[in-house]
Amino acid sequence: MVATPNKPQIQETPLSPEELRKIHAYWRACNYLAVGMIYLKDNPLLKETLTEDHVKNRLLGHWGSSPGLSFVYIHLNRLIKKHDLDIVYMAGPGHGAPGILGPVYLEGTYSEVYPDKSEDEEGMKAFFKQFSFPGGIGSHCTPETPGSIHEGGELGYSLSHAYGSILDNPDLITVAVVGDGEAETGPLATAWHSNKFINPIRDGAVLPVLHLNGYKIANPTILARISHEELECLFKGYGYKPYFVEGSEPEIMHQKMAATLETAISEIKAIQKEARDTGVAKRPMWPMIVLRSPKGWTGPKEVDGKKTEDFWRSHQVPLSGMHNNPEHIKILEDWLKSYKPEELFDENGTLIPELKDLAPTGHRRMSATLYANGGLLRKDLKMPDFREYGVEVDQPGAVEAENTRPLGVFLRDVMRNNMTTFRVFGPDETASNRLNAIYEVSKKVWMADIIDADADGTEITTDGRVMEMLSEHTLQGWLEGYLLTGRHGFFHTYEAFAHVVDSMFNQHAKWLDICKNEVPWRAPISSLNILLSSTVWRQDHNGFSHQDPGYVDLVTNKSAEVVRVYFPPDVNCLLSVANHCLKSKDYVNVIVADKQKHLQYLSMDEAIKHCTKGIGIWEWASNDDCGKEPDEPDVIMACCGDVATREALAATAILREEFPQLKVRFVNVVDLFKLQSESEHPHGLSDRSFDTLFTVDKPIIFNFHGYPWLIHKLTYHRTNHDNLHVRGYKEKGNINTPLELAMNNQIDRFNLVLDVIDRVPKLGSAAAYVQQRMKNAIIEHRAYAYENGIDKPEMTNWKWPF
Amino acid sequence: MVATPNKPQIQETPLSPEELRKIHAYWRACNYLAVGMIYLKDNPLLKETLTEDHVKNRLLGHWGSSPGLSFVYIHLNRLIKKHDLDIVYMAGPGHGAPGILGPVYLEGTYSEVYPDKSEDEEGMKAFFKQFSFPGGIGSHCTPETPGSIHEGGELGYSLSHAYGSILDNPDLITVAVVGDGEAETGPLATAWHSNKFINPIRDGAVLPVLHLNGYKIANPTILARISHEELECLFKGYGYKPYFVEGSEPEIMHQKMAATLETAISEIKAIQKEARDTGVAKRPMWPMIVLRSPKGWTGPKEVDGKKTEDFWRSHQVPLSGMHNNPEHIKILEDWLKSYKPEELFDENGTLIPELKDLAPTGHRRMSATLYANGGLLRKDLKMPDFREYGVEVDQPGAVEAENTRPLGVFLRDVMRNNMTTFRVFGPDETASNRLNAIYEVSKKVWMADIIDADADGTEITTDGRVMEMLSEHTLQGWLEGYLLTGRHGFFHTYEAFAHVVDSMFNQHAKWLDICKNEVPWRAPISSLNILLSSTVWRQDHNGFSHQDPGYVDLVTNKSAEVVRVYFPPDVNCLLSVANHCLKSKDYVNVIVADKQKHLQYLSMDEAIKHCTKGIGIWEWASNDDCGKEPDEPDVIMACCGDVATREALAATAILREEFPQLKVRFVNVVDLFKLQSESEHPHGLSDRSFDTLFTVDKPIIFNFHGYPWLIHKLTYHRTNHDNLHVRGYKEKGNINTPLELAMNNQIDRFNLVLDVIDRVPKLGSAAAYVQQRMKNAIIEHRAYAYENGIDKPEMTNWKWPF
Repeated sequence: MVATPNKPQIQETPLSPEELRKIHAYWRACNYLAVGMIYLKDNPLLKETLTEDHVKNRLLGHWGSSPGLSFVYIHLNRLIKKHDLDIVYMAGPGHGAPGILGPVYLEGTYSEVYPDKSEDEEGMKAFFKQFSFPGGIGSHCTPETPGSIHEGGELGYSLSHAYGSILDNPDLITVAVVGDGEAETGPLATAWHSNKFINPIRDGAVLPVLHLNGYKIANPTILARISHEELECLFKGYGYKPYFVEGSEPEIMHQKMAATLETAISEIKAIQKEARDTGVAKRPMWPMIVLRSPKGWTGPKEVDGKKTEDFWRSHQVPLSGMHNNPEHIKILEDWLKSYKPEELFDENGTLIPELKDLAPTGHRRMSATLYANGGLLRKDLKMPDFREYGVEVDQPGAVEAENTRPLGVFLRDVMRNNMTTFRVFGPDETASNRLNAIYEVSKKVWMADIIDADADGTEITTDGRVMEMLSEHTLQGWLEGYLLTGRHGFFHTYEAFAHVVDSMFNQHAKWLDICKNEVPWRAPISSLNILLSSTVWRQDHNGFSHQDPGYVDLVTNKSAEVVRVYFPPDVNCLLSVANHCLKSKDYVNVIVADKQKHLQYLSMDEAIKHCTKGIGIWEWASNDDCGKEPDEPDVIMACCGDVATREALAATAILREEFPQLKVRFVNVVDLFKLQSESEHPHGLSDRSFDTLFTVDKPIIFNFHGYPWLIHKLTYHRTNHDNLHVRGYKEKGNINTPLELAMNNQIDRFNLVLDVIDRVPKLGSAAAYVQQRMKNAIIEHRAYAYENGIDKPEMTNWKWPF
Repeated sequence: MVATPNKPQIQETPLSPEELRKIHAYWRACNYLAVGMIYLKDNPLLKETLTEDHVKNRLLGHWGSSPGLSFVYIHLNRLIKKHDLDIVYMAGPGHGAPGILGPVYLEGTYSEVYPDKSEDEEGMKAFFKQFSFPGGIGSHCTPETPGSIHEGGELGYSLSHAYGSILDNPDLITVAVVGDGEAETGPLATAWHSNKFINPIRDGAVLPVLHLNGYKIANPTILARISHEELECLFKGYGYKPYFVEGSEPEIMHQKMAATLETAISEIKAIQKEARDTGVAKRPMWPMIVLRSPKGWTGPKEVDGKKTEDFWRSHQVPLSGMHNNPEHIKILEDWLKSYKPEELFDENGTLIPELKDLAPTGHRRMSATLYANGGLLRKDLKMPDFREYGVEVDQPGAVEAENTRPLGVFLRDVMRNNMTTFRVFGPDETASNRLNAIYEVSKKVWMADIIDADADGTEITTDGRVMEMLSEHTLQGWLEGYLLTGRHGFFHTYEAFAHVVDSMFNQHAKWLDICKNEVPWRAPISSLNILLSSTVWRQDHNGFSHQDPGYVDLVTNKSAEVVRVYFPPDVNCLLSVANHCLKSKDYVNVIVADKQKHLQYLSMDEAIKHCTKGIGIWEWASNDDCGKEPDEPDVIMACCGDVATREALAATAILREEFPQLKVRFVNVVDLFKLQSESEHPHGLSDRSFDTLFTVDKPIIFNFHGYPWLIHKLTYHRTNHDNLHVRGYKEKGNINTPLELAMNNQIDRFNLVLDVIDRVPKLGSAAAYVQQRMKNAIIEHRAYAYENGIDKPEMTNWKWPF
């Protein structure tokens, strides 16, 4: 931490009377529109006396935080014009869209994007009616909202999204308005620490505005009900310099906000200038603002004798029951008229020129900034040739390698080629996941204190590009913000703990789905690429709590248009898959690959072919005719996932040895969605192709990395589904060696052989004998592991013998 | 916030030389055991020269935070003895078990619970060997650890668990050691605010100890690398009075820790005394301690010339590569001998009496406190008769009621009967979920500032028992802590945002699974009861981001022994289910029920019968013989979930009208796991019962609340699965009226009729005509909704016409 550079002198009341009058008028226009959106389906300019016919049948929307949001918006407009700034506005408070949509409409962007919402009475009427209306738009800053990269329906991510947006965008300031409700969530509470990862030389800045609106749906907020001293301490403790803008009197508040924002922006500029001039990146106390204003500011003070403004009753629709209630209609009309719309809009319903002038123009409008339509700024990654990073595989199943280590070398060169547009994110495990080659090009960024000892292998530096913090929430939020502003990234995390961010995945997938299908003006962005490593099958001492392969179950619930799941079995497949994912757009790509040593199966050319198909017969591991002739196998041994593949292969080897006449077809799945019907997922195999691979009537033993029923969920429509027998993780674990864990869940070679014997009737008299040998092998292996604490070396060193 | 009562005078060096010598010796014993656990499988007392034969083959475990954890433990022992305290020790740092297991063994509890780990050489050898060893115990404070109610494998929940444990336990102090890695997680970062919900009169206290150990796996921690001033501010901002214990010299640190802990405990007692004497509950600045000590404290300073103590290299096994490396064996031996085991243990390997005396005895031992085996303290809830809270249903499908409102009245009386052992938890929506009758008995607890206006409907008070904070993480953490210490609770939350705590559910379910199956000395605890309300089908303006019924998918991945899922279709069924769940033990019960108005179907007696069976034919809605005769229906209309049931019923009504000859059997599912085979889940129907209900060859149209493939996942084994056609939510939503949303996802009455027509061949010439009418109805309804913003009243007011 360093002292903030000298603070520039800012006037206490920077707005001239004329400027104050105009800015207040502009705010009245915003508030008028917010109320209009919530209530009106007709008579938008109040040219007629308001009647219930003009009011929507259902009143949906949230007035509470809207005036505060537009208050901040218009004061930012002033500074953008004054200093020619690029600002992204991040609206954290839930349901705050009316406070954003108002100014977005007033500055013309809305009408440009949606011409039927024109800047006139007709357009205003349509603009009002569509809000929270079937077929219309929601009350969050959904993808349909120009300038938004943060929906805000699920609370907690505004600040991490904001920080992600300004990484490597030195000229961007993202203003993150944080709701005091949202501030209670865990993800938000730790995201304040993002300032320990911001380098003022190469990154932009986030200006957080904590909106102390006072209330949630039905409760006060914690931060609004602690002492000023505690609140100030909290933000100093988080590493900020807090400024307070508190009150309710508009004239005074406009002056305070103008002065404070100017101060904050000047401080940010001064910090950046000093760092950029000197070339020395230090962590300053970045400014932040606490805006304490009444909930439902400027709304009805009381309704039916109940306190409403500045109270929880203003949270949603402060005034309801409009039908058959002329008194409420009158209150609504008075409320709308209190903003004096006739002074703001001309006869046609167009904002008057002197107010129109207050907004910036073109891409300087926050609603039209290219940063918030990142696909337009996105440039393809300069990709190294992934084929050069593979391992030599002369013979399948003969050599071992750590599957993720060459990926690290590949990512290193992706980083090297894209030093301002690519970052790698992970909780604390880049090295543990064998990706540490990246550090040769860029270490981890660290703007908190660095001590001498760190030189010895801590791999941190102020200009690193690898982001590590022990918060999956913050990491994913940063990455999403980074992608949404047009850049590229790679997130690797612990398989079991990917569930920590289940909900963030859901939200991002939904955002992509809407953008892709309903918002043509949004350009595609880079995919969110997630590598799940430290997988369920290698938890020797972590045990049961670290065993959960169910993240992919969640992923398969989302729209087929935006999700992809890959289980590369070896190094070359992982490289091929990762290369594909890094180049893709508008997906969430999930790759599951263990970091430990695994057998290598496919040469690079074979891997590319296999991954391109996504599923296929491994002929070298099969002894049937592999689909070339109508002669079919006796059994299909299928597998998906690295450990599952090795065990399936070892089982196949036993079968070939014990039952030489048995025809086994070996099928490996890399692309999980190949299993689904083509009608369900664009990657899905046709029924005909599926039947060709899996036959229509032969037993299939399917060895799966994850929960076995996921495979049934994907394949229940398939012809041969009744003969599909799936093994996978079924919550049978504790402290186990890897193979013992496999045995407990019956995905090991011996149990797979037993499964085949159970399902293939024609194995003859040898079957009983082999059965007994398999059972003995399991017992013996477990005894060995319990005695020695490790798996039998002949099993872990096993190689494909043919 | 109020000033802390006068601080008692505590000596700066409270330990006499004799006490200091002994406490340090005890700590040496703890550290010796921790190192022994990580490394040794034999020669536990070093009676022979250490050789590699004595060392485990795989070295697994985390030394880093262990010395700090036992350091805190033994100082707490001193205070327990001195002041006769009840303390629960919550170990937050990941993999900290060696630091806990050491003192747990030394005070005898471990040997009492596991007699083969006796307090002698043989027992110590077994105790060492089992650690992080196949068939043994993990390196977290797993359920097998006496005194633990917090596994700590997934980071983030130590503090919320701690706060949950002390609610309504006025005499309990829970000391939560928070790792500085864990402190970076979101859930932990917001859990500090739990102090705004603690009433010093009736609740106990949490004493947080932030262990600034300095490093994670491979990184420094944020809180260890900000200035002292920032750190102090942060905790003042969180509402604590921080004390700092910093250093590395054991003698000085022992004195500092003894003095500081004594100060903190005295302050807690003084705060409680003042509040309890005066009867005035105010929020004080509760004390907390920052313990800054070296990572891997007392371990090797350097290994192979690399800095190790006080560095990230001490995080796991600081000294590895033991085999064929006599030098490392020697370092290990010297390290172990540095604790002078011969001074600590007698010839038999038993702790010498003067050290044994330092630990408390009986249930005062933190490892043997009943609070940490809550099932032993648990008393059954005094339950009101749920049958008295139902609605009158003279005729099925004729009247409407809000399904959750009577549940609120029921919960009110559960609360009234159990005013010290039952609490209700929810983010911000007790009233919105129609449960507000509870407030008649107990309002929401709020220890932050209360203002005059709050009297007007905010429903907060210092002695409320309803817990609301906008953090699902904190709520679930509190509830888990509350249940694990032997109490009862009810958590209601937004269906889509239950995913925020997916991972906490996983961890709690795994904890229960292990307790149930592998830890016989743990008594059963009350189930974790979760009501998912504000469900996917009613999101008029919240839209797409609030539509996700996939939490139950996650639940079905966990062990069948600990999970239960219910979809009560009406008020009486919900009451019956809730009553059952509140009385159950060792489950996670998930109940999905919408808060809005729904048709009522079953009288209380019928509801009890239906819910007890969990699945059944509704004869009044069927026109087949309902399984009484061998004559079978033409189609089975099945449903699960409130909205899905209404639409299935409305479809059945249309079918009865349009095709009077068609025999429709109507099946409703309350208990989701009835669908699974009895071999998969204890609630599962036998195949025979399933076939009787669903036939073996007739088409089944299954209308489901959630993602449709979940039903396939549960039923793929069933005889008639090929004829099962499931409708459910498939990510087709935006801003929609409820029925429009149903139509988009094809769970509405018209689409269901179309499904039946598609699948029943014998409907004759009327089929085409009805088909067209259904399609028209959908088009007309959508047009109506787009025009009016609401569903057609004749559809929402629809009643069962027969």
